[in-house]
Amino acid sequence: MAVPHLTTALTGPLLELESRILAAQPQIEHWFRSQWNAHAVPFYGSVDLRNSGFKLAPVDMNLFPGGFNNLNPDFTPLAVQAAQSAVEKVCPEARSLLLIPENHTRNTFYLQNVATLVHIFEQAGLKVRLGTLNPQITAPTELVAANGALVTVEPIVRHGNRLTLADGFNPCVVLLNNDLSSGLPELLKGLEQHLLPPLHAGWAVRRKTNHFAAYDRVADEFARLISIDPWLINPYFAHCTGLDFHARQGEDTLAETVETMLAKIAAKYREYGIDQEPFVIVKADAGTYGMGVMTVKHPDDVRGLNRKARNKMAVVKEGLEVSEVIVQEGVYTFESIEDAVAEPVVYMMDRFVIGGFYRVHTGRGVDENLNAPGMQFLPLSFETACLPDRNATPDCPPNRFYAYGVIARLALLAAALELEATDPERD
Amino acid sequence: MAVPHLTTALTGPLLELESRILAAQPQIEHWFRSQWNAHAVPFYGSVDLRNSGFKLAPVDMNLFPGGFNNLNPDFTPLAVQAAQSAVEKVCPEARSLLLIPENHTRNTFYLQNVATLVHIFEQAGLKVRLGTLNPQITAPTELVAANGALVTVEPIVRHGNRLTLADGFNPCVVLLNNDLSSGLPELLKGLEQHLLPPLHAGWAVRRKTNHFAAYDRVADEFARLISIDPWLINPYFAHCTGLDFHARQGEDTLAETVETMLAKIAAKYREYGIDQEPFVIVKADAGTYGMGVMTVKHPDDVRGLNRKARNKMAVVKEGLEVSEVIVQEGVYTFESIEDAVAEPVVYMMDRFVIGGFYRVHTGRGVDENLNAPGMQFLPLSFETACLPDRNATPDCPPNRFYAYGVIARLALLAAALELEATDPERD
Repeated sequence: MAVPHLTTALTGPLLELESRILAAQPQIEHWFRSQWNAHAVPFYGSVDLRNSGFKLAPVDMNLFPGGFNNLNPDFTPLAVQAAQSAVEKVCPEARSLLLIPENHTRNTFYLQNVATLVHIFEQAGLKVRLGTLNPQITAPTELVAANGALVTVEPIVRHGNRLTLADGFNPCVVLLNNDLSSGLPELLKGLEQHLLPPLHAGWAVRRKTNHFAAYDRVADEFARLISIDPWLINPYFAHCTGLDFHARQGEDTLAETVETMLAKIAAKYREYGIDQEPFVIVKADAGTYGMGVMTVKHPDDVRGLNRKARNKMAVVKEGLEVSEVIVQEGVYTFESIEDAVAEPVVYMMDRFVIGGFYRVHTGRGVDENLNAPGMQFLPLSFETACLPDRNATPDCPPNRFYAYGVIARLALLAAALELEATDPERD
Repeated sequence: MAVPHLTTALTGPLLELESRILAAQPQIEHWFRSQWNAHAVPFYGSVDLRNSGFKLAPVDMNLFPGGFNNLNPDFTPLAVQAAQSAVEKVCPEARSLLLIPENHTRNTFYLQNVATLVHIFEQAGLKVRLGTLNPQITAPTELVAANGALVTVEPIVRHGNRLTLADGFNPCVVLLNNDLSSGLPELLKGLEQHLLPPLHAGWAVRRKTNHFAAYDRVADEFARLISIDPWLINPYFAHCTGLDFHARQGEDTLAETVETMLAKIAAKYREYGIDQEPFVIVKADAGTYGMGVMTVKHPDDVRGLNRKARNKMAVVKEGLEVSEVIVQEGVYTFESIEDAVAEPVVYMMDRFVIGGFYRVHTGRGVDENLNAPGMQFLPLSFETACLPDRNATPDCPPNRFYAYGVIARLALLAAALELEATDPERD
């Protein structure tokens, strides 16, 4: 695969930020090691980054990552090794794993992701089977992924406090690749098996604002470590509750929140001499799949929304009603690949970065969310591992990917703190 | 790099053995996980394998591996990830590492190995410096490796019970890449820093027979796990002591040991219908670097050795006198690459296989040791990771390498048992 041609505007502070991250690599890795000593790392995750040339920041953190099929297959051994670490940590005795995918069976690219995950865990030496929460699947069903791979999903049979399959398959570990948007199924409650990620990582419970509150703490500490302004790696955010888009309730509060944030961003832009128009992203706080997302450049943009726009914001995946949103500083995407806007997504398993890809979309602007429903993105897998080359320029692909891997791991660490803080069994 | 053209004789039991290893992959990986739960894995190691077409077995296990420069650079990320695991296990707080290489400064290929190791640990986020035990080096000295890489070795300064460098570099971890053939330096005794591998892994203390005694136990258990004759993965060995090659003392005992073993091998060859001439290898029990090694096909071969042969056997590296030998069943090397005899070497860090290469030598026979002094071998790095492809034939390169990785890990596990059993601080 050819090196992606990146046309990021690289004359501003980001190059400086990347240099600083590179130079501090030993301190950074040491710091991560001590953090993972103090906090349990999530099993896996993916992070959407935005690189504006002056700012490099996470904008979303997924604890049930799809898209493993978009990673460079050359790095599958890295994923396998990381999977061995992850599984060993949870249960050294593990022999078998039940993977619970999303319910939708028609997205053949998603099925390819499932097939890739099965492959990774099989390579790691586990027996892997797929159990589905989809009530329409009542017998083992073979599905065909986009690349022709076959995956067989089977109905889950609960025996006491264990999940099994009809033929007696009795796994030690249950791994969710289903983000539980529609609620926490009774089937998954009170299991004696290891359930990963934990139930409270599901979108029925999880809130983006909890994540970014944890990220604030992580970014502040990291910024002190390498002596930078935390804003360079952290988008502002605010929480807005009590909304009802259908009933047009809470519009003014939302508009005020947007106004305050636009002013804060403008002040930072002036401080750094950035000649861009500030914008914010309004997203469902419990949302996923890029549904319920709006780009806003003026407070009036959220007032008097038309029916279509309100409908779009009012519900996310599986019909979940939106009453809370996160108002997040928008970060321009200044990376492009052959004139198309590109957004990096970094994948991690255990505490290891195992690869990433660019979401590339010609039809979208630099200030828009690239993870939108129906979006036809072209995945362009990173062609090198996220390891630095300190003898090369800061903006060569390996060094850029190292910086991406560092910021993505900060978001992973924030997810660890978030899951600790929201753990219902926490004392 | 092109796929190495392997002309192994693959119609006999090895293909069956490889199939069995492939089919049992989940059980094997589960078994390894539980073994590493019970036994501390050595920090790193390399294993010389011999593949005779009917038998696949380790013939040497190095706890201070050189030759990292011969691994496929495409898999450096695997080594880095494994190094992170290894370091984290020893000391999550580690920031810096002192690497102690061999004393010889003129072997530029060895220096390239050192440069590769430095690179791996730097990539893992450690500050790495080189401290030497060589008394001739009294100031920081820059050396040039075969590929032009620069390495700076510095005299070690001991402060109390810590090793440091003159400018105050005070590492948390001391990693030996020096096999301590010439004895255990006082400098390294009683350190409060983590010293890896431990002193008793050095050849001044270590004995091949201890290793292969431990390997007997490992091979027996593994053979039960996958229901095979342990002989298919385990060469016979015997221990011969009280030898003095110069004084021609112990010749008869050695000849009798050889005779007994040749008879045992012949019986096994008859059992499996193998039409080859049995042979044994006589090696210094504390030897290294392929010195003090003899190929023997008849008991008389070790009687009445001429002066040259006796001198060759009498001393190994750094003038160590040989009074104990291991008599090991010889395993034919039936792998060849373009008419040259090839011997696989597998590298591991922590419990992970991180790559390997073939020692290829046109001038040597199928029954000779390929790791001999002055040997001009061509390293041919494995071109795929040691992960299986269960949809392909057992003898495709990924599957062959998986089997190699399994057998190499058995030897690594044997080294773990050996180090436990020989630990001077063991209660």
